[in-house]
Amino acid sequence: MEIVMLVLYSLFVTYDDNANAKMQNNETNPMDNSMYRDYPYFADVQVMIFVGFSCLLGFGRFYGFSGMVFTFLTAAFSIQWAILIQGFFQFYYDGKIHMSVLGLLYAEFACAVVLISYGAVLGKTSPVQLVVMALLEIPIFSVVEWAVLKYICITDSGGTILIHLFACYFGLGATFVLYRPSLNSGHPKETTSYNSDILSLLGTLFLWVFWPSFNSSLTVKGDDQHRAILHTFIGLSSSTMTAFALSAMFNKRGKLTMADIQNVTLAGGVTVGASVDMMISPAAAYALGVMGCTACFFGYKYLTPFMARQLRIQDQCGIHNLHGLTGIISSTAGICGIMLATEETYGPSLYQIFSHRAPVEGDPKLLELQQLIPGLKPGLGRTAREQALFQVAAIFATIAASAVGGVLTGFVMNLKFLASPSDEDCFDDAVFFDVPSDFDTTFLLQIDQNSEEKGQTIPMKVAKDQ
Amino acid sequence: MEIVMLVLYSLFVTYDDNANAKMQNNETNPMDNSMYRDYPYFADVQVMIFVGFSCLLGFGRFYGFSGMVFTFLTAAFSIQWAILIQGFFQFYYDGKIHMSVLGLLYAEFACAVVLISYGAVLGKTSPVQLVVMALLEIPIFSVVEWAVLKYICITDSGGTILIHLFACYFGLGATFVLYRPSLNSGHPKETTSYNSDILSLLGTLFLWVFWPSFNSSLTVKGDDQHRAILHTFIGLSSSTMTAFALSAMFNKRGKLTMADIQNVTLAGGVTVGASVDMMISPAAAYALGVMGCTACFFGYKYLTPFMARQLRIQDQCGIHNLHGLTGIISSTAGICGIMLATEETYGPSLYQIFSHRAPVEGDPKLLELQQLIPGLKPGLGRTAREQALFQVAAIFATIAASAVGGVLTGFVMNLKFLASPSDEDCFDDAVFFDVPSDFDTTFLLQIDQNSEEKGQTIPMKVAKDQ
Amino acid sequence: MEIVMLVLYSLFVTYDDNANAKMQNNETNPMDNSMYRDYPYFADVQVMIFVGFSCLLGFGRFYGFSGMVFTFLTAAFSIQWAILIQGFFQFYYDGKIHMSVLGLLYAEFACAVVLISYGAVLGKTSPVQLVVMALLEIPIFSVVEWAVLKYICITDSGGTILIHLFACYFGLGATFVLYRPSLNSGHPKETTSYNSDILSLLGTLFLWVFWPSFNSSLTVKGDDQHRAILHTFIGLSSSTMTAFALSAMFNKRGKLTMADIQNVTLAGGVTVGASVDMMISPAAAYALGVMGCTACFFGYKYLTPFMARQLRIQDQCGIHNLHGLTGIISSTAGICGIMLATEETYGPSLYQIFSHRAPVEGDPKLLELQQLIPGLKPGLGRTAREQALFQVAAIFATIAASAVGGVLTGFVMNLKFLASPSDEDCFDDAVFFDVPSDFDTTFLLQIDQNSEEKGQTIPMKVAKDQ
Repeated sequence: MEIVMLVLYSLFVTYDDNANAKMQNNETNPMDNSMYRDYPYFADVQVMIFVGFSCLLGFGRFYGFSGMVFTFLTAAFSIQWAILIQGFFQFYYDGKIHMSVLGLLYAEFACAVVLISYGAVLGKTSPVQLVVMALLEIPIFSVVEWAVLKYICITDSGGTILIHLFACYFGLGATFVLYRPSLNSGHPKETTSYNSDILSLLGTLFLWVFWPSFNSSLTVKGDDQHRAILHTFIGLSSSTMTAFALSAMFNKRGKLTMADIQNVTLAGGVTVGASVDMMISPAAAYALGVMGCTACFFGYKYLTPFMARQLRIQDQCGIHNLHGLTGIISSTAGICGIMLATEETYGPSLYQIFSHRAPVEGDPKLLELQQLIPGLKPGLGRTAREQALFQVAAIFATIAASAVGGVLTGFVMNLKFLASPSDEDCFDDAVFFDVPSDFDTTFLLQIDQNSEEKGQTIPMKVAKDQ
Repeated sequence: MEIVMLVLYSLFVTYDDNANAKMQNNETNPMDNSMYRDYPYFADVQVMIFVGFSCLLGFGRFYGFSGMVFTFLTAAFSIQWAILIQGFFQFYYDGKIHMSVLGLLYAEFACAVVLISYGAVLGKTSPVQLVVMALLEIPIFSVVEWAVLKYICITDSGGTILIHLFACYFGLGATFVLYRPSLNSGHPKETTSYNSDILSLLGTLFLWVFWPSFNSSLTVKGDDQHRAILHTFIGLSSSTMTAFALSAMFNKRGKLTMADIQNVTLAGGVTVGASVDMMISPAAAYALGVMGCTACFFGYKYLTPFMARQLRIQDQCGIHNLHGLTGIISSTAGICGIMLATEETYGPSLYQIFSHRAPVEGDPKLLELQQLIPGLKPGLGRTAREQALFQVAAIFATIAASAVGGVLTGFVMNLKFLASPSDEDCFDDAVFFDVPSDFDTTFLLQIDQNSEEKGQTIPMKVAKDQ
Repeated sequence: MEIVMLVLYSLFVTYDDNANAKMQNNETNPMDNSMYRDYPYFADVQVMIFVGFSCLLGFGRFYGFSGMVFTFLTAAFSIQWAILIQGFFQFYYDGKIHMSVLGLLYAEFACAVVLISYGAVLGKTSPVQLVVMALLEIPIFSVVEWAVLKYICITDSGGTILIHLFACYFGLGATFVLYRPSLNSGHPKETTSYNSDILSLLGTLFLWVFWPSFNSSLTVKGDDQHRAILHTFIGLSSSTMTAFALSAMFNKRGKLTMADIQNVTLAGGVTVGASVDMMISPAAAYALGVMGCTACFFGYKYLTPFMARQLRIQDQCGIHNLHGLTGIISSTAGICGIMLATEETYGPSLYQIFSHRAPVEGDPKLLELQQLIPGLKPGLGRTAREQALFQVAAIFATIAASAVGGVLTGFVMNLKFLASPSDEDCFDDAVFFDVPSDFDTTFLLQIDQNSEEKGQTIPMKVAKDQ
């Protein structure tokens, strides 16, 4: 496979003008290179993908190696595959894919899609199955992304529709096919340890810290990006507070649950996504964070068990709560934001943020606006209402396409020769790794079981046995 | 509380001009947006607060969840609260608080204040108490900060006086009221484990790495910020070497103590703070690192136990050593730096760094200087000696105000309905969290005790019992 | 030692013009300060050194404290020592070393050299020995770096020759002298635990994420730096995929080995180093990643054990695989890149990237080129072939000098009074640290041994004993 990839790279990939020595001339200012604009965001998203996701998905007591390492593997493969496939749809001209740091950033978003979907099937898939999933998901995603952006022409700065909703319903489609009835009653190895919970929380913190970069990296530069950072921070902040409150309130004994803190706190970051660069006011970002978090929390509590039992959809990490429900709230908020956007609030930059509302080529209003905003590109002359309808169409089209794509991918992943682990081997690192001597599932589980069953601590048990 | 916060946000918070779409016109260069100047520093400080502090305070063997999670909670709450309260004092005009990334950065500094104070009461407080502490500390801090900057007019680039000294004496005031005699003889759960020590060290390393960003984020741009980075790095570096040397020298068996490496190595970052952007020479930064580290080390060794026993001040994480003693050394060095600052060393930028020394409006010297430094603002025409006296006044005023504020806050935190944990439940995650099955305080403590008491390893003990 | 250092700093170190308040005038734009260009790369490399290396080298089950803490100590000392020594060779004029963030970045590279060499002797050295190693290695490195750059005049953007090859052969030289026959048969404490493997993987991920910054930080600004980032990312990505494939293929039971994932995945970053800013095409970077990774993998599998047994070179972390073999492949690729570089591919910037190929002062062609590239500096007028020969010379000279330097340093480290740990005390934190109560080598090893020997889990053993 490495060789196929190498051949494809040598045939199709070349440098973008900004990375091509020959394209520089005496008027090029090296510091104007596009890299200086994109690299800081790329680096932040790298930390989120490789450190944040890896740690977050390393929450399993007996599945920490797999959670981290398979994330690493899937991410590395997805990005290099997306450079080719997504590059073909986005950066292909003159018979070549032109590669730049911006292309890498796009590829990382495609990679985030695969990793979110991975969350649904974590624990019951072999690395080969994951690579196959990435192999299929990246092209499906690239086609959908290209079609939606080119034909439906939507506004999706924070990637709510194309990243979160796509990834979520793709993952649910795949896990629907990979349904394992025996896992519904709980798997003895599906548990956390004190250290694995801390590792996962560390991942949450890295995602939390760099989420503003994620949400703002593809917005228009200037005040738009500024707002994107503010909204993401406020949304995360209010959803964090809400998550703590709900976790303590709805736990029987008023205690906090680590899983809530690891996941639900992040809901606000997704929920502000679709309207992240709009003039929605800080208070609206705050409210979105609270709403997204509430939906996510109750999703974990009631919807995920319901889906697993009644709909045969086992959503391991609850991606439907963290990306699906919040994504739908976010898209709705985005549509409201579009409907409410007026020149009064935005000034002429309205036509820059909602680029499809800019007048068409040749319209005299375009020239007028171009004097106010140099470099404004002609749009499609849509009204707010029209744009809102197209957004709705894009949401349904994306959900449908991703769910179907997920189901098909699930069937391929289910093929015998892909070495899916047996039910018993789920959530167990020892199946895929040479594990250190202090990893001994049987022993550790036995201790737990004993101390739980008898309600006693181990020393007593040892004593009694004698 | 979420609702109150939401109402306050909707009533009072709006966008800064740099984040307001309407304020952009055809002369605005998007890349000149203030966000590009502030966001990198904001992101670095975010890592320090959410990753660095969380890990550092997760040092407890049975208190890792609480250390990390309560830091996360307190930080998220403090920042959103500071956006309102501190924003009211710093960014309020036209009836609204104008929000920007710079405002977030200020709010993070206010949050750092709360987290430092938290270090004094860690282990004996419930999350509700911590939120109450933040609820009171942020307004007190904002008022003191505003009053000191507006009326005493000091120079405090690295935040030595307003961040470190304020936070330290506030925390000591609070812990004085929350005194628990039984903790003085040591608590069985107040201990570390191999993994929790490593987690805490990881936090130290993140703080170490990004401290130059912290110290330099609010200095004048250009050479001032450059010096701030150099001094902070040198100070940290020399205090690290000193900490290792002292730790090995003053340990009975010549071994290193992890607590020293986790805390004392950071002393240099605080100690260079007050003079961080002055022309003090690299050697002076080096010397400050050594001095701060030495004071901090002996503070941990002798002063902290003395304070706990004689003064009823139980300083859990030793914030008085890391922020108080070093803060005093740092302020003194800052005053020396101010006294020694001459036009000979600084050139005309003297009046930019020590802005209160710039001539008053109307003074002919001001016009002269403004030709050398375009945009120089009129100052108060103070001499070096006058400025130094005002610094001294600010130090005493800040310490007094923070200690009183801390004591009052301590009384509120002590109210019955805030669910303070019992003495026995201190340093125990199980009180606040659903803990995984491998967390069993009783069992683990018993093992330790046995193996210590009998000087034997456990297998032997088991054998003997039979 | 602190005092000596302080005296040296006060005698010799002053500010660079960019950090000197007096050097600013009314034409200085503060945002043009060199710090803004260098600091982001410096910060990224800081994370690699202090977080990435620390975690990576904390892989030992009983040596996690030492691995992390000694990295911290060695790094802090190396940088402050390199500021002086390397500064003397690179930034010394007017009787002073002029210090700037660029100087710190150079010093961090020198520090990386020491830490790589440390990888060879990890586990069998005391902190005093490590400080002595840094004390000697920094000057030797600085002299070699200065001589090679000044007299042989090579191109070495990614630091392949001067950082990776130097560090590798220096480390091998030192470990050759510190040979301990008893360690060849394996040491009972030379093992990992589940948590230490995860810690080390976390280090790998940080190194992986920020490696593009490392490789690109000293290239020419603009498109060169852009390419450096792209190549490093592609190289790492392809070497990661290859590492997974090889690890699964060459393990008896088709399982993955954590040590491979922790180390071999990074090989691509070194391998693209020497040609990192050249127009080698993305496919070539991909191929280099695959080749470097393959060499590194088989190095770990066959060469490291062979060297330990037959050549008396115990390479603890396998630096010869990760830095030596890959460094040689990289240098060879760099030479090919130099030979193939034509004006056709590069345009006039050829003479900027390969600066020694620029025409000499006075050559009319220089004036012509300077019109195309303003600010082009005169070079040595070398042909591609000449430059390639000089590169070869530099490779051999560096390897020879570093190996000799390493051997000599090894002899000094072997001096009796430096407190080298006994064979039995290798890989044991308890020798150097006050360890927490849950760290008990004897007990833990005994459990392992028992459960391995008898092929049983512990509860059974306990039962049988009765």
